[in-house]
This record gives sequence, structure tokens and C-alpha cells, in this order.
Amino acid sequence: MSDQRTTPRSADEATSEKLVELAKRRGYFFQSSGAYGGVGGFYTFGPQGAALKGNVEDAWRDRFAVAEGNMEIDAPTIMPEPVFEASGHLDTFDDMLVECPECGESHRADHVVEDNTEYEDAESLPIPEVEEVIAEYELVCPNCGAGLAGQAVEAFNLMFATNIGPGDSQPGYLRPETAQGIFVEFPRLKEYARNQLPFGVTQIGRAYRNEISPRRSIIRTREFTQAELEYFIDPETDEPDLSAVEDVEVTLYPASEQQADDGEEIQTTIGAAVEEEIIGSPWVAYFLGVAKPWYESVGVDMDRFRFRQHLSGERAHYAADCWDAEGEIDGNWIELAGFAYRSDYDLSKHAEHSDDRFTIFTQYDEPKTVERAAVDPDMSYLGPEFGGDAQAVVSELEALAARDRSAFDGDTVDVDLDGETHELPVEKTGFAVEERTEAGEHVVPHVVEPSFGVDRLVYTVLHHAYREDEVDGEERTFLQLDPEVAPTFVGVFPLQSDGDLEDEARAIAAELREAGLSVAYDDSGNIGRRYRRQDEVGTPFCVTVDYESLEDEAVTVRERDSTDQKRLPIEDLPETLSALRAGEFAFEDL
Amino acid sequence: MSDQRTTPRSADEATSEKLVELAKRRGYFFQSSGAYGGVGGFYTFGPQGAALKGNVEDAWRDRFAVAEGNMEIDAPTIMPEPVFEASGHLDTFDDMLVECPECGESHRADHVVEDNTEYEDAESLPIPEVEEVIAEYELVCPNCGAGLAGQAVEAFNLMFATNIGPGDSQPGYLRPETAQGIFVEFPRLKEYARNQLPFGVTQIGRAYRNEISPRRSIIRTREFTQAELEYFIDPETDEPDLSAVEDVEVTLYPASEQQADDGEEIQTTIGAAVEEEIIGSPWVAYFLGVAKPWYESVGVDMDRFRFRQHLSGERAHYAADCWDAEGEIDGNWIELAGFAYRSDYDLSKHAEHSDDRFTIFTQYDEPKTVERAAVDPDMSYLGPEFGGDAQAVVSELEALAARDRSAFDGDTVDVDLDGETHELPVEKTGFAVEERTEAGEHVVPHVVEPSFGVDRLVYTVLHHAYREDEVDGEERTFLQLDPEVAPTFVGVFPLQSDGDLEDEARAIAAELREAGLSVAYDDSGNIGRRYRRQDEVGTPFCVTVDYESLEDEAVTVRERDSTDQKRLPIEDLPETLSALRAGEFAFEDL
Repeated sequence: MSDQRTTPRSADEATSEKLVELAKRRGYFFQSSGAYGGVGGFYTFGPQGAALKGNVEDAWRDRFAVAEGNMEIDAPTIMPEPVFEASGHLDTFDDMLVECPECGESHRADHVVEDNTEYEDAESLPIPEVEEVIAEYELVCPNCGAGLAGQAVEAFNLMFATNIGPGDSQPGYLRPETAQGIFVEFPRLKEYARNQLPFGVTQIGRAYRNEISPRRSIIRTREFTQAELEYFIDPETDEPDLSAVEDVEVTLYPASEQQADDGEEIQTTIGAAVEEEIIGSPWVAYFLGVAKPWYESVGVDMDRFRFRQHLSGERAHYAADCWDAEGEIDGNWIELAGFAYRSDYDLSKHAEHSDDRFTIFTQYDEPKTVERAAVDPDMSYLGPEFGGDAQAVVSELEALAARDRSAFDGDTVDVDLDGETHELPVEKTGFAVEERTEAGEHVVPHVVEPSFGVDRLVYTVLHHAYREDEVDGEERTFLQLDPEVAPTFVGVFPLQSDGDLEDEARAIAAELREAGLSVAYDDSGNIGRRYRRQDEVGTPFCVTVDYESLEDEAVTVRERDSTDQKRLPIEDLPETLSALRAGEFAFEDL
Repeated sequence: MSDQRTTPRSADEATSEKLVELAKRRGYFFQSSGAYGGVGGFYTFGPQGAALKGNVEDAWRDRFAVAEGNMEIDAPTIMPEPVFEASGHLDTFDDMLVECPECGESHRADHVVEDNTEYEDAESLPIPEVEEVIAEYELVCPNCGAGLAGQAVEAFNLMFATNIGPGDSQPGYLRPETAQGIFVEFPRLKEYARNQLPFGVTQIGRAYRNEISPRRSIIRTREFTQAELEYFIDPETDEPDLSAVEDVEVTLYPASEQQADDGEEIQTTIGAAVEEEIIGSPWVAYFLGVAKPWYESVGVDMDRFRFRQHLSGERAHYAADCWDAEGEIDGNWIELAGFAYRSDYDLSKHAEHSDDRFTIFTQYDEPKTVERAAVDPDMSYLGPEFGGDAQAVVSELEALAARDRSAFDGDTVDVDLDGETHELPVEKTGFAVEERTEAGEHVVPHVVEPSFGVDRLVYTVLHHAYREDEVDGEERTFLQLDPEVAPTFVGVFPLQSDGDLEDEARAIAAELREAGLSVAYDDSGNIGRRYRRQDEVGTPFCVTVDYESLEDEAVTVRERDSTDQKRLPIEDLPETLSALRAGEFAFEDL
């Protein structure tokens, strides 16, 4: 729920406005259900957007599942209430809500405070204090200007609630993160990993947050796609292969620099950052090192990318270290991914709340002999003495023996039961210390979690690819998308509406598709307009079939970025274009 | 909601039981949230299942989106209430619910009736009649045996309901079909199609139905994946390219045969079925012809596959013709896909309920001259006469002129307003019939909808691939999955735990992955157990590295189905295995 809103680098928000217009016009994304006035926070990816999003997801899968040897699963988006009781979402996954007494509009109280006072992290304030600040500063409704002082600030749970089956006896929630679908199935997933740590499980899928005020296009929506990796490790013995990423250069913005008066971003390498303990967890460092070149490969501008460490107030209490990947959009830094060392929090919580085993048995190198204190109470004494509470006393004695064997040192031992202390003769408890030989132990794995937002990455990739220039005296807009992720790689056009040209162009389009390239065939409008259309879509190359083509078996190939054109033989097209896609040579060297 | 439950061909339900066990053990699928006792109707796809499902989805995308030249979109799963008011789901997407007065369990009343009486299609009966049948036959609770007579049967809406934003002022529902995310965006999607019919839009995504009693593993779940194509046509002018599919051989089970005493399935071709009008809609026939070879390509057994026509009672009133693809599972036929000619129902409904345009302007071959009756009322007369109702009178006059110009034949015309009839002089209405030249007309496209269930297809593919045989005197279970969809194509093993063997095996695994093959590396357990593990997963080939390999640079390749083994040079592996995957030759011909 963190919502980093650093001071803009520049005040130019125009690119986003123009991008959102282009996205709608060209089929990248648009607000859903527009025929019914639209609903805040829900967006539909059109043909280009769905393809770009799919390409980004495939690239993530290749890197974080396949190449890392992790398992990918696919779990339901609706989960039953006990899961979120255990995870803590039911109790604490809240935003602060304040409703305007005049217009009735709901606002995030912390945003109202941050936007109009010098408070920077109002989310971390207790509710009564937020109410006081609102009163003290006489803050008003951002919508209608009515005073908000005196209005109650309420904790609003961000999960979408529903009921499973008839009636309301089985509440369910749309998952606020894909992660819970992995954690809750750990007892089965560990079997697929043959009970060996470390192992990783990934999931790409929908997650839902019922935001009070969704904003900024597809950057903060109510339904979105996450790509998450939960990596399970033995904290005692497992170490990441840092040698694979130590030379990766990164821009870091550590907590200490954020808090310093003249603090700034640091240019360093993953290896140096671990050595100098700028990044606290080597596991987190490893995944930052994997993520950086991956973001570059899908087209995020590395001059507008950094890793920012969470401040201690931002971090969950169980998280030892946490960094965000951030991309710059119109002068603001937005969160693209979070990398957290979550310790054993998630699995311990589910172990506590369910009957299943969230541990892995790890064998010692050689068996160990250990002392174990145990009790074997005399029930013929406890029964008459405690009646229905006798079993509770046994449980208390067992816990006490495991916790503090010195409690049994004297002749009597004190047992607390429902707030009352009872004194028992030690001889009736059957207390003894035994030596046992153990082959291993049950370990609760720790979790390292790289968690990626897909929609906001798609937005960032488009934003960083947005270009305007002038061609033949006319303004041109184009998306300089990487061929790896561009929804269409090549447009194929007949120069004019003519049966022969169209047949030849269709045949070329079919052949290029056969070669595994993504092709758009277009025969409508004049050729200049067709080029501009593909420029706006971000198609790297266009092929035009003209009357000469029917004679010389060659076509004009045009490059998006330079608008340069070259004449190439039709029979070479599949090979040449495939090589250009793979980056084997540049168009200008053809 | 149709739920075909034909008499079993055989009583053997054992395969499903064994398959579900295997699916759990090997990571295909299992009931979700098992740690919390599980929830009916929610399943998680494990690593193998997620990969198989992904392969099936990719194959569908290649055939129904890319090869057909359709657009794919990606819309939210939560949609606002007005969408489902328009679509009719809010009013009529119900099942009949009866609750046991003793144990409180909810049941589908129509299933209770069908399972215990001679009624075959209880779903189509009115509720009071179902209550009567329950009383008459003294039907009991399938769970506890208590009598259900006298219990109210209620219509239970199958959509999962939630609230968007704080409070309950904006109800939302999880979409019961992906289709609505396409229909509602038609006004924008038609622009991406440059306002030209025909065009198709596909979507692969989650859909939700809050089933009263989910059953049979992943065949009937509450959350599932659909792959749908909405194909928009001009019913007057567009025709499918039947020549592309006319020779496809199909097994059809038309409504007439289902109703005949000795009716049976018909073996024919798509072309013949259209000619003989067995399939009513050529468009439906076209997509049946595309679907049949596609189902075969992903591994559905064509001896256990057919197309069944809906009976008139099963069909929605607006659907001109509707066929299901069905697969046989343990003697029962289950629905795998529906192919419906939906006329202009969906777009007309949204046009009626929203302010947007759900039409396409189609140009005539040459402009037409038409007569249009219009009014131009004298407001200086209507104003004083009707006051605030004057505008309503104008609207009434306009509608009347369009509907029935003879109403203006006399000196006066009758206008109904709020139940009262007013007489007006025709001369004050400005009524006139004009000749207009029109270049085209606004057409509400008709929709042809092939709608595929992905989960139940995954189940069918696994079921049809399930095999048991005997190898070296031991029983063996294996999945004879097609290499196109198998989650893993090749397993790579070192013969024993040995650094040199492991290094070589890992190097081979990396090289095969590089060649685009899906590889499982496994070094745990004896070699026989590793073969059996891959057999159960359905991996077509295994490669074993032994000590000889380090000398002769060759490995043992084993085929899953025959268990035959051949020795092949390591350097040939990527090429040979890729060729085997592409079906260029058989293993036995190596």
C-alpha cells in the first residue's frame, strides 16, 4: 500500500496525458465499461495492450521461472476467510477513509493530509492523530471544498468481499496478492520440490484491491496483474549465487540517503553493495541483480530506474530488508516491484492457524544427540485434583518443560491456569530429561519475495518508449518499443487497393507469420497514414509491396525509428527480419 | 448452465479416481486451501497443470486468434451492475436451490429431481412444478435423508456479488463469462477493426459461477478459465469460408436424433452437414470445422468426441442454432465448448441499456433514395397548450411519424401522454414525408460465439491420455500426452550421484532448454523411479548420462510409450529431439 510520491523531477505531466490518449486510440488500454459511464480503477487492455502485456509476462516467466528453475502454479483468485485471518489481511489490510459531509465522496484521509500539510507519511499515523491534523489544519474535501474537520476517519478494508455458495456462511475474498495462493499450498508444493530447500514458486495472475480513490490510469487500479516469486530458503545454510550478479551496475537509493539532508542516489554494483552492507540481505541483493537487466531487456529506460530501500516505518515488522524497483514517470517515481526478505512470517502464520505442516525436514550432516525435557504426569493425582481442567494442566506442564526446565528444579512447580497459579509436587509431573538422537530438524523456511506489478510496468514501458519528432515537415508520434515486447513486429502493406498487390502482400504476411513473427496486414488508407498508424503502435518495421515488386520480387522495408527505407528481395525477408528481431545486426548495416 | 448427463457408456469410473490421485501426486491439480479443509469448487493447478493449461491456451490463441486474424483483449473480471442488468444475468442467471430442513445443506433442486425421478430436464420446469414433484415423489436430502417435501425451492443467482469502493452504492459482480467484457466494449473495439465487418475478438480469462454444488473435480468449479471468441458479422452479407473446412469429418448428434427412439450419432462432413441442413447456421458449421482438428491436435481422443445439437428447450430464445463439443469421460459426455449463433441479442441489449452505439455503419453499393416521415411541430402552439409537457409531446409525435405515418392522414392526430389521449391539429405538427438519399445504414451486427472451457479440456486431455501397462513385470501408469501440450518434453538424468555425471547432465539440460525444449533435470532416486516419475507426468522422452557417456559422448534416450531405448550422440540431441517434437519422424525409425 506504499505510495511513494517524491517531488517531481519536472513539472511536465503532458507525456502521460498524450500517452493515455494514444493508448485508447491505438488499442493499448482504456477505462472499462465506458458505455455505462466507466468505473474507477478498472481498465481493459485492447489488442495491442493485451499483446504487450502477454509479451512482458512471457519474458518474466522465462527469466524468473524457467531460467531460475522455479515452479509456476495457477491458483484461484477467490480464497476463503481463514486464509486472510492467518495472513493478517482481514485485520490490517486497511486504508484510512474520510467521507465528505457535503458531497458524500470518500477520500483517503492520509492523502488529504499529505497533499495539504507538511506531513510526508500520514499513512503511518494513528487514526485519532489524523483526525486531529484534519481539524487543526481545517482541511477540506478535494472534491467540493466542504470542511472535513470533525468527520470520523475510518479503517476501510481493501479486500473485495463475497460469499461462497448460497447464504453468507462462507465468506470469501478476492486475493489482494497472488502470494497467498502459494503460501497456503506450501505443504503440497514442498512435495513437488521433493522436500529440498531452497526452491521457488511463481505465479502470474490477477490480484484485487478495493482502492478508495484509484488514480493515474493503469498505475493504481482495483484489479491488476502481479508476477510474484516466493523463494523458500533454509536461513541457516542456503546462500544465493552472488557471483552471477555481482558485476551488475545499479542505482541505489538507501534509507540513510533518503533521510540525510543532502542524500542522493548511489551508483554501485550488486557485489559492492553487499560487501558494504548497503543491501542488508544477500538474497534480496541477488534478485535485484537479476531484475535490473531484465527490466532493461523489456524496455525500461535505465536512466529513469532505481532501487529504493524502504524506510523503517514503511517496512512490515517481520521484514528484515525491503527494496522497491522504481521507474520515473513525468517526474514522479512509481513502484514497479518490491523485493522483501519476509523471514518465516508467512509460513508460521499459516502453521499457527491451520492443521497442516509448514516446515521442511532437513537432515543433519550427521545425527545429533540432544537433551529433551519431557513430562509424564500422574493422572491419578491430576484427575481428582483438577477435574475437567486436568488436560489443560498437562499441556501447561509440557510447554513449561520445553520452555524452562529450571522450573522443575525444586520440589514443587507453579502452573498458571486461567490466570490462577497452582502449586504441584514435581514428583507427580513425571519430569525427566532424556537424551535423544535426532537425524535432522523441522525447519520453517524463510521467504524471499520479488513481487512485480505487470500493469504499471506496461505503462512505464510505453511511457519510456513515447517519442515525438518531425518527418518531412510533419509532426510524428511513435513508440520506440523493443522488438522483444512490441505487440507487432512488422506491418505488411500493398501500396494500393489492387488485387495483385494484395495477394502478394497477403502471401508475404503469411510467410512472415510462419517464421514466428507477429504481423499486421493493413490495406486501408494511404500509405503515409498506414506508416503513422504502425509508428503509433510501435511496430519496428513495415514492408510495402508495390507494382515493381511484381517484377523484381523485392519490397520496400522501412524502419520505424529512422524512417529509412531499403529495398530487399522477398525471399530473404523471413531470415533478414528474424535476424533484425534477434538484434544480430542493425538496419543501417543491411 | 446446461449439464448433460447421458447414461454412462460403461460403469467404469475408476479412471477418474486414479487420475485425480495422479494429478495431486504429480502436480497437475488439487483442491485449493487444503490446509484449511478446502473449499468446494476451487482448484489449484500445480507446476505440471499450469504448464499444460498454458500450452492449451497458447494453442487456442494460435488457432482462434492469430490464424483467424482476430483481436485478443484482456478485460477485468469485476464488472458493474448495469452490465448484468443489460445482459440479463442479474434477472435470469439462476439455479434452483432447495435447502434441507434437517442438515441445512443446499442442493440443486433440479438435480435432486433428475437423479430420483424419470424427469430428464428438470431445469426447464417452473419452480412451483419442481416443488410439486419433490412433494409427490417424497424426495429426500441426498446428504442426510430428511424429507424435502414442503421446502421452498428458490431461484439462486449464480454470480458472485461484491461492492466496488466504500459502502454498497456500487454493486459489482465477477463476470460469469468472459464474453461480456467484449460485448460491452464493442463501441471501441469496432474502431480498432476500422468499422469493417466481419471481425472477431477473443479473450482467455477467468470466469466465475457460484455453483450450489460444485462437483467432479475441475469439470464443474466455481472459478474457471474460458477461451471465447465473439465473431461479429453482417447477417445480410457476410458468409464464412466453408471451403476451408467442408471436408472435415465430424460426429454429429443432432436434436432430431436425440429425440428419436432409435436415434444415433451421424458420421458426416461439415460440407455435407450444411448442405443437408443438419447444421442450421453455416457460421456455426465453420467454427465446428475449425474446432474439430484443433481438439485432435491437443490430444482429445476423436473416438470419444462429438458435436451435440441443443434441444429447443436448452437453447436461449434468441439463439438460432447451438451445438456443444462434447468429450466422453468414464461413460459420460461432458460439454467442452458451445458454438452458438446469438443473433443481435447481446449488442441490442447493451444498446438499449446504455447511451453508446452498438452498430456499424455499412455503406450500400450505391446510395439509396428512401422516404422518411418527419415532424416539425409549431412550438408557439404546443408551448402554451402543453406547458412543461410540450417536449414530451414532440417526442411522441416523432415516434409516431416513424412508426405509423397513416396516423397523420386526417385533420387531427391522437397523441398519448401518460395514459391520456390528446387530439392535435395535424397542421400544427409540421408533418411531412421527405425523400432522402442514404449512403448506407447502421447495422446491429450478429454474433457467432465459440466458447471453450479450458479446465474441463485439460481434464479431458489428461483422462484420454491416461494409460496403464506392464513393464518388466511391474505395473506402470503413464500419460500419453501429445508433445505439443506435454508440460515437459524431455527429462535429463545423471545415472548416479556423481559430480562428473551431474555436470554433463546439467550441461545437456541447458543446451536442450536453449533449443526451446521444456526440460526437467532430475538426480534423485534410482533411475527406474525417475523414469516412472516422468511417465506419470507424461514426459515423451528421457535422456540418461552414464559413465560411458563421458568416454563416447553419447547418451541413452528412452521413449515414454514404448520404453524403447537408443544410444545417441550428445551433439545430435537438440536437433534430433526437436525433430521428434515436430513429428518429423518416429523414434523407432531413428
